[in-house]
Amino acid sequence: MMTNMSKEKDRMITMAHGAGGELMDELIHELILPSFRSDIGEIPLSDLDDSAIIEDIVITTDGHTVKPIFFPGGDLGSLSIAGTVNDLLAIGAKPIALTAGIILPEGIFIDEIQQLLSSASKICKRTGIFIVAGDTKVVEKTDLDSPVMTTTGIGKRHPLMDQNMEIAGERKKDWLSDQNLKDGDKIILTGTVGDHGITILSEREGYGFQGEIKSDIAPLVDVMESALKVGGVASAKDPTRGGIANSLNEIASKSDVGIEIIENDIPMKNWVKNGGELLGIDPLTIGNEGKFIMAVEPSLAEDVLAAIKKTDEGKDAAIVGEVKKDIEGVVLRTEVGGTRILETPVGDPVPRIC
Amino acid sequence: MMTNMSKEKDRMITMAHGAGGELMDELIHELILPSFRSDIGEIPLSDLDDSAIIEDIVITTDGHTVKPIFFPGGDLGSLSIAGTVNDLLAIGAKPIALTAGIILPEGIFIDEIQQLLSSASKICKRTGIFIVAGDTKVVEKTDLDSPVMTTTGIGKRHPLMDQNMEIAGERKKDWLSDQNLKDGDKIILTGTVGDHGITILSEREGYGFQGEIKSDIAPLVDVMESALKVGGVASAKDPTRGGIANSLNEIASKSDVGIEIIENDIPMKNWVKNGGELLGIDPLTIGNEGKFIMAVEPSLAEDVLAAIKKTDEGKDAAIVGEVKKDIEGVVLRTEVGGTRILETPVGDPVPRIC
Repeated sequence: MMTNMSKEKDRMITMAHGAGGELMDELIHELILPSFRSDIGEIPLSDLDDSAIIEDIVITTDGHTVKPIFFPGGDLGSLSIAGTVNDLLAIGAKPIALTAGIILPEGIFIDEIQQLLSSASKICKRTGIFIVAGDTKVVEKTDLDSPVMTTTGIGKRHPLMDQNMEIAGERKKDWLSDQNLKDGDKIILTGTVGDHGITILSEREGYGFQGEIKSDIAPLVDVMESALKVGGVASAKDPTRGGIANSLNEIASKSDVGIEIIENDIPMKNWVKNGGELLGIDPLTIGNEGKFIMAVEPSLAEDVLAAIKKTDEGKDAAIVGEVKKDIEGVVLRTEVGGTRILETPVGDPVPRIC
Repeated sequence: MMTNMSKEKDRMITMAHGAGGELMDELIHELILPSFRSDIGEIPLSDLDDSAIIEDIVITTDGHTVKPIFFPGGDLGSLSIAGTVNDLLAIGAKPIALTAGIILPEGIFIDEIQQLLSSASKICKRTGIFIVAGDTKVVEKTDLDSPVMTTTGIGKRHPLMDQNMEIAGERKKDWLSDQNLKDGDKIILTGTVGDHGITILSEREGYGFQGEIKSDIAPLVDVMESALKVGGVASAKDPTRGGIANSLNEIASKSDVGIEIIENDIPMKNWVKNGGELLGIDPLTIGNEGKFIMAVEPSLAEDVLAAIKKTDEGKDAAIVGEVKKDIEGVVLRTEVGGTRILETPVGDPVPRIC
C-alpha cells in the first residue's frame, strides 16, 4: 500500500485528498506517516486520534479553511477555537490553552478581522480557555482568497478521567481513544447531525431555508464534563470532515468491531433533511462542529444520555446504535426494516467546510 | 493608540502589516491583543516573546508562507520545523514535540509534498524532536498559490536554565525573555546575518551569486545548549521577519534600554553584502532562520562566545555590541567612526520570506 502514491512522480493532489475520506487516508498513510517517527508518546501520531499525548501533555492541531469565512451561526474565528477545544475534550483532556496562526490576504478589511477575533474571543470567554501564543502572516491577495487559521490546543488529563475509565472497564487505551470500542457499547450522538455542512453549502449556493439555517459550532466542555461525571465513556469523536459516516467507520475500523446504527434514531433537524435532499447530499457525510459520537458502557448509557441532555449543547442527544463485534463496518438499519452499509465517503461533497 | 485601526471601518490589511515592522506591531497591539485575555501564564501572550509559558508548558506557533517553497539551503518543510524549534529554544525551553498543519493547493505534485516532508523529517531526526499531531487541508488552486504550513512547538524548561539564570544575575524574568536586558550586557550574534532573506529574494529575482547563495535554516539546539552550559545568557531572540534591525529594537524597547552595535563586527557573508547592494536591501533588515541574538552577562560573554563557536551552526558567532542604558533605541557605530540609528523597518522589503 505504501507504494501507490510515492511511485507516481506526476500524481497530483486533488480536492478529494483533503476531504477526510479514503483518499485523505491514503495521503496520510502512504506519504505523511512514513516520513516521520510516528510512534512517540502515549497516544502517538500514528494513532491518528483527535489529539496526541506526550509527556502528560495533550496536544492537537487543525487548519481551518472554511469558505465563506462568515456564515449563520459562526465564522472562521469561532470554528477554529471550538474545533480545537473539542478535539482536546474528545480524547479525555481538560483544555489549558490555545495557539492561533492566522494567514491573511492583503486587502481584507480590518473590520472583518475584528469580527473574526471577536467571535473567537467569545468562545474563549465562554470556556475559560485562552490563546497564549499567536502568529500573523499576510500574503498577496492573488495568492490567497480568504483568511485561513491554524489552531493548536494543549491540555492535561481531565480530572474526571480516572474515575470514568475505571467505570468503562478494561479498554485498549486509558484515554477516550478511537480504539476503545467493544461489543455491546452504546453509541450516543450528542445532538443533531449535518447542521454545519448544510449551512456552509447552502450559503455558497445562496439557499436560505426560511432562516432556520445555522451552524452548530459550539465548544462541548459541558457536554463532556456531564458525561464523564456519570462515567463509563470509552471513546469520543468529533465528527467533522466526512461527517458521522466517516467518524463511525474510523472508530469501527480502529477498534476492529462493527457498528449498527438505527437510522430513525439519528437526530436531524428538518431543514437539514430538506436541505440535504435539495442539495443532493447525505447529511450523514458532512461535517459537524458541535457534536460528539460517544461509545459508552451499556449499563451506563441511559444515565450518560440523561446527563448530556441537561446541557445546552446536548439537549438533542440520543442513543443511536450499538457496537457489534460480529458485523463488519457500519450498518444502518433503515426505517422500513432493511439495512444498508454506511461507507466512508470517498470525496467530501463540501470542500472547505472547516 | 487603540483607536486608529479599529475606528476606520474601511481600512484594509496591506503586505506591510505582515512584515514584522511597525505596522505589524500596530495590528497586534490595536486589534489582536485587545480581543483576548492576554495576561495568562508566566510568559503571557501580551509579552509577545518567542514562546509563551503556561502551567510549566512552553508553547509557540508560527505560520510559514515562504515563496518559493523550494530554495537553496532549504524549503517550506525544513524552515517550519527549524523555526519552531528555535522559538522554543529562544525562551529557554527544551523542545518536546511539534505539531504541523499544512494547507495544500489542489494540483500540487505528490512528489513536491514528499520533498517537503523529507526535509522536515531530516530536521526532526537531527534534533530528536518529532511531529506528534498534524492536519492536512486541501483548497482550490485558484484560492491558494502554494502550500502554507503552521507549526506549533511545545517544550519544558531546559534543565540547564536554573543554573544559567543564576549566573546571569537578577533579571526581570526567569526565562530568556526579551525584557531581561540590562546595562553592560554583551550582545552576541551566533552567526552571519541576512543569508536567508537574500537567498529568497535573489531566487525570486533570478540572481545566482556564483552558486554560493544558501539559506541558513538550522535548528539551534547545540548552539543554545553550549551557551547555557557556560551560563549567564539573559535573553535570546530569533531574528526572523524584519531581521536583526527589528529584533534588536524589539528587545531594546521591551527592556527599556539602548543597544550599541559595532557595524564592522556584524558577521556577514560577502555574497549577502553584494547581494544586498545589488537588490537595494539592507541585510540587517531581512530575515534569518538559523541565528540567535543573545544578551549575555559581560564577564561571561567571551566564554559563551567560545562555546558557541565550537558548534557547527555557531562557528561565525561574534560579540557585536553592548547594552547601554543611557542611549535610546539601537545605535550603529559605523566603520568611519560615525553613528546612525538602526530603526525598526516599517515594511519588510521581502514579503513571504518565512
